[in-house]
Amino acid sequence: MFGVDDMSLLDNIHGPEDVRALPPEALDELCREIRRFLIGSLSEHGGHLASNLGSVELTVALHRVYDTSRDRLVFDVGHQCYTHKLLTGRKDFSAFREMGGLAGFPRPYESVHDAFIAGHASNSVSVALGMARARTALGADYSVAALIGDGALNGGMAYEGLSDAGHSGEPLVIVLNDNGMSINESVGGLASMLGRMRTRVEYIKFKKWYRNTFLPRIPGVSTVLSGMKQWLKERIIPENIFDDFGFEYIGPIDGHDIRKVENAVRWAKEYGAPVLVHVITQKGRGYPPAEKAPEAFHGVGAFDAKTGVPRYTGEDFSSVFGRTLTEIAGEDPTVAAITAAMKEGTGLIGFQEAFPDRFYDVGIAEEHACAMAAGMAAQGLKPVFAVYSTFLQRSYDMLIHDVALMGLHVVFGVDRAGIVGRDGETHQGAFDVAYLATVPGMKVYAPSSFAELRTMLRKAVLEDTGPVAVRYPRGGEGLFQTDTSGEACAVVRAGSDVTIAAYGTEINEALAAARTLYDRGVDAEVVKINVLSPLDTDAVLASVKKTGALLAAEEACAAGCVGERLLAAAEQAGAALRAARLVNLGGGILEHGAPEKLREKMGLDNGSLTRAVLEMLHGKDKA
Amino acid sequence: MFGVDDMSLLDNIHGPEDVRALPPEALDELCREIRRFLIGSLSEHGGHLASNLGSVELTVALHRVYDTSRDRLVFDVGHQCYTHKLLTGRKDFSAFREMGGLAGFPRPYESVHDAFIAGHASNSVSVALGMARARTALGADYSVAALIGDGALNGGMAYEGLSDAGHSGEPLVIVLNDNGMSINESVGGLASMLGRMRTRVEYIKFKKWYRNTFLPRIPGVSTVLSGMKQWLKERIIPENIFDDFGFEYIGPIDGHDIRKVENAVRWAKEYGAPVLVHVITQKGRGYPPAEKAPEAFHGVGAFDAKTGVPRYTGEDFSSVFGRTLTEIAGEDPTVAAITAAMKEGTGLIGFQEAFPDRFYDVGIAEEHACAMAAGMAAQGLKPVFAVYSTFLQRSYDMLIHDVALMGLHVVFGVDRAGIVGRDGETHQGAFDVAYLATVPGMKVYAPSSFAELRTMLRKAVLEDTGPVAVRYPRGGEGLFQTDTSGEACAVVRAGSDVTIAAYGTEINEALAAARTLYDRGVDAEVVKINVLSPLDTDAVLASVKKTGALLAAEEACAAGCVGERLLAAAEQAGAALRAARLVNLGGGILEHGAPEKLREKMGLDNGSLTRAVLEMLHGKDKA
Repeated sequence: MFGVDDMSLLDNIHGPEDVRALPPEALDELCREIRRFLIGSLSEHGGHLASNLGSVELTVALHRVYDTSRDRLVFDVGHQCYTHKLLTGRKDFSAFREMGGLAGFPRPYESVHDAFIAGHASNSVSVALGMARARTALGADYSVAALIGDGALNGGMAYEGLSDAGHSGEPLVIVLNDNGMSINESVGGLASMLGRMRTRVEYIKFKKWYRNTFLPRIPGVSTVLSGMKQWLKERIIPENIFDDFGFEYIGPIDGHDIRKVENAVRWAKEYGAPVLVHVITQKGRGYPPAEKAPEAFHGVGAFDAKTGVPRYTGEDFSSVFGRTLTEIAGEDPTVAAITAAMKEGTGLIGFQEAFPDRFYDVGIAEEHACAMAAGMAAQGLKPVFAVYSTFLQRSYDMLIHDVALMGLHVVFGVDRAGIVGRDGETHQGAFDVAYLATVPGMKVYAPSSFAELRTMLRKAVLEDTGPVAVRYPRGGEGLFQTDTSGEACAVVRAGSDVTIAAYGTEINEALAAARTLYDRGVDAEVVKINVLSPLDTDAVLASVKKTGALLAAEEACAAGCVGERLLAAAEQAGAALRAARLVNLGGGILEHGAPEKLREKMGLDNGSLTRAVLEMLHGKDKA
Repeated sequence: MFGVDDMSLLDNIHGPEDVRALPPEALDELCREIRRFLIGSLSEHGGHLASNLGSVELTVALHRVYDTSRDRLVFDVGHQCYTHKLLTGRKDFSAFREMGGLAGFPRPYESVHDAFIAGHASNSVSVALGMARARTALGADYSVAALIGDGALNGGMAYEGLSDAGHSGEPLVIVLNDNGMSINESVGGLASMLGRMRTRVEYIKFKKWYRNTFLPRIPGVSTVLSGMKQWLKERIIPENIFDDFGFEYIGPIDGHDIRKVENAVRWAKEYGAPVLVHVITQKGRGYPPAEKAPEAFHGVGAFDAKTGVPRYTGEDFSSVFGRTLTEIAGEDPTVAAITAAMKEGTGLIGFQEAFPDRFYDVGIAEEHACAMAAGMAAQGLKPVFAVYSTFLQRSYDMLIHDVALMGLHVVFGVDRAGIVGRDGETHQGAFDVAYLATVPGMKVYAPSSFAELRTMLRKAVLEDTGPVAVRYPRGGEGLFQTDTSGEACAVVRAGSDVTIAAYGTEINEALAAARTLYDRGVDAEVVKINVLSPLDTDAVLASVKKTGALLAAEEACAAGCVGERLLAAAEQAGAALRAARLVNLGGGILEHGAPEKLREKMGLDNGSLTRAVLEMLHGKDKA
């Protein structure tokens, strides 16, 4: 009846009301169409495939229960929102994750159906509780639900949220999308517990019998059990963590059976108290390559839709980091690696294989990872925590309190520093330059090439003491491939008319601008800053005193940027400049898009830098 | 036998080995002596009384089991470490919490017996796990234990740590000091669960019978149960959250019965796997005023030892904040207040009494508090999160991700901003000026007087949109008591020779310095910065262009400080200064001591500012 390319159901879905209008027997076919759409679209644009394939039925079921134009459905992490976007009038994936196109995460600016921003993990219960409390305080009557994965549930904030929410009594539904693995296999005690819940068949049968016997029938239950029943319930039903927190627990439920999920969520929505619905799904569901290797299809670039083979696999800073760290660990048996559920992303698969006893994946738990690393360092290990810049924001307090106050030698491999591109505003590594600078005693390296990353990581782990960070961008190196790490600041191009200061891969734009400027009669000196903190301002000022003008270009937020520190130092040193300009990510929010487009937008590309220098030297007219 | 002033046992305790050498029958008397010492000493110096009185027996027991010179005992929060200090050779409390004297928190620089720094909550399990893993990886054989309170257990990081630790199999003991209230009564689901554990007597009896029947005898247990016993254990012993996490759970145990605690901890230490020992204690134990009102004796100033009456109670910024917010909430029914277990400290008792339905104490859970506030704001409430500057570091990521990316109107009452004094390095509010400046769209007010706090808080809650912070110091106002909040920057003293920029109560030192300088022939203009972000640099530069010299004095870390931003702006504006100097908390770590001593040490007092101005204008010799 339905051909492979047939999208006749999806074509007629213009909003969630159309999903609700479908007869139940059409839903499985709708899900098949959605899966075909996702595989086709993502094979071209890349994105988070496996988690979206796993949550198709669940999302359809949620839209049959909730009216997301007024009910609030809070996603957690949010990269599993593609089906949600498809069902809420957003089917144009032609510029998916590109500037001006659909974002890969929920975005309230994009649609009223996106209740809240998502991108970082484990906040959804807290956000949903806040919304539920606002609803109650303001006398409104919409429903609130959070959709959280088992991986995100590992994060401490989720626990804080559950603890408060269960106790609150607020009508609120938490849907736990449990696929038994977050980005990697889930780790830790919670995963074991969920595993036991999934497999303990006798328990489920017993609970079902118990519910049927003692609990009011679904739907239309009363929320108060008689004293006797309560007494029985407490003594007879084995408790789990959700019961402990004051939630009514329903589950586990087959997340690919729309009818079952819909019934459970509908009951939960009507229950009038905090309910947790535990749904079991399979990551990569319906696409054999992703079912077999869901980790490989977590966040993907373009791939061949038939075979699942990625179109591009190249060397990048993450893989160089991972390989170098593995080498170092081979030389020094006290080196350990830590990741917070990002072993693929941070390039640590090889390390894990080579040194499983010194590899620690703590799950989504950046706070714990940082404090644990501090404990390791206090007792003689050399821990290296590999973490994305944006997620290290979670550890800011631990950087100061647990690591820096004792001057402990913990090394941070700060991946995805600077512009990350298509993942958008929740993932840009815009803040680490500023916040790492405030951490007492923290040394911050900024390699521009693979060669520099190798040397700097070696220094950071084997030679430095105290807290050290090595920050490097997403993706590969540019034309600059030399190693200047012997100096804190290196003059990589001598000149006399203006100093351009830059670091990381932005150095490629700076050097390109210098070449263009030379053709326009301006001889620029390019200073590459290798160590951002402590900042060797003297080295840069030596150049600035010579040229009399400074342009600092950086993929970092304006407040606390390196350029600000340089200018403050220049002013304190009495170095009056003819002209000074800071080009950076500013004080706003940087959306999703191709990195080169974003760089252009922020004035950080070769052409913009050239124009900026000409403007500051000759005024706007002559530029 | 023992008189009230008799300290004959304590006098002979010079280190924990002396505690271990005491006969068991002498221990209760030792505890009585310790309590007398604590009450006497703290009535003079202030400190954390109630929690220390509650943990005397527990601490003595721990020292009979662990050799803290090599075993690692990790405190959580750490203000309950006084008995530990007394027993580890630190009995000179004469300069307690003063500069150069004993710190009120564990401090590894102070003694080898202090395994790790403590001050912020919920990190101890993570730190201890890191230490245990280092121990195992390096083949050492010391023991590791963490001592955590039920309040700190509410923090998400503790959950992240427990989840990883239970799963790790590392020999490790977590001692849960459960006094049924952290700083306030504990809140949330965990507290209810602990409550049930405490009271469910049948369960305890059953568990005891079960243990005696099925588990190997303590001590010298084997770690592996036979399959049959394991099967029975899983099915018969009701599980709690600690079992779920993979811990062997022992408890609850009367924490004032040294013998019982000692036996349990000794068994746990030998067990060879993660064990949680649940100990019940009474806060304020043995001192009637503190037993009756433990909250009042959490962190106290000097008090009358006989009656418990505090020697000083005055108006401070926290009380003005609380009263003003209560007034505002009376006018606007959408205003809500949030605290993370700090309702006394942040002055919110009155708010809770007046508006219990709009008051949310989430326990020690700053991440959750911030994300929940964002959810509230998204749905139309006006949440105000009152939190200490140092603890808001925990919410850094949520400030950006949950609040700022959507531009939500959440107000932060940032208490204890700047130098906090006697609580020391873990509590200084040194970083908020820098990290709040990086948060997109965040407005930051810095009142200098009670009057300004009132006006600025009103503006922040009722007039501003988007994220807003009002930061104010610990303690009271100084001579400056006017309200200049109409301007982002206010010239509070006109002058012609030099501009002194300052904010908060530091303005008092700046004005005093200006008066002294006038006598020395220097006419200083004093500019008070009322809004730190966005910074109205033009207003300050107008003054600086006139005077040609700038000294910026601030209780904030150097990186990202306001002075740095001012100088960078001056350099970009082409304002060449004759002289410029930034005086602030630098890039290091500020220890404990009286605020005035610390201000002097950092060059922020009247005298130092005067000297700094004279030096920068006339050179060092003439100053």
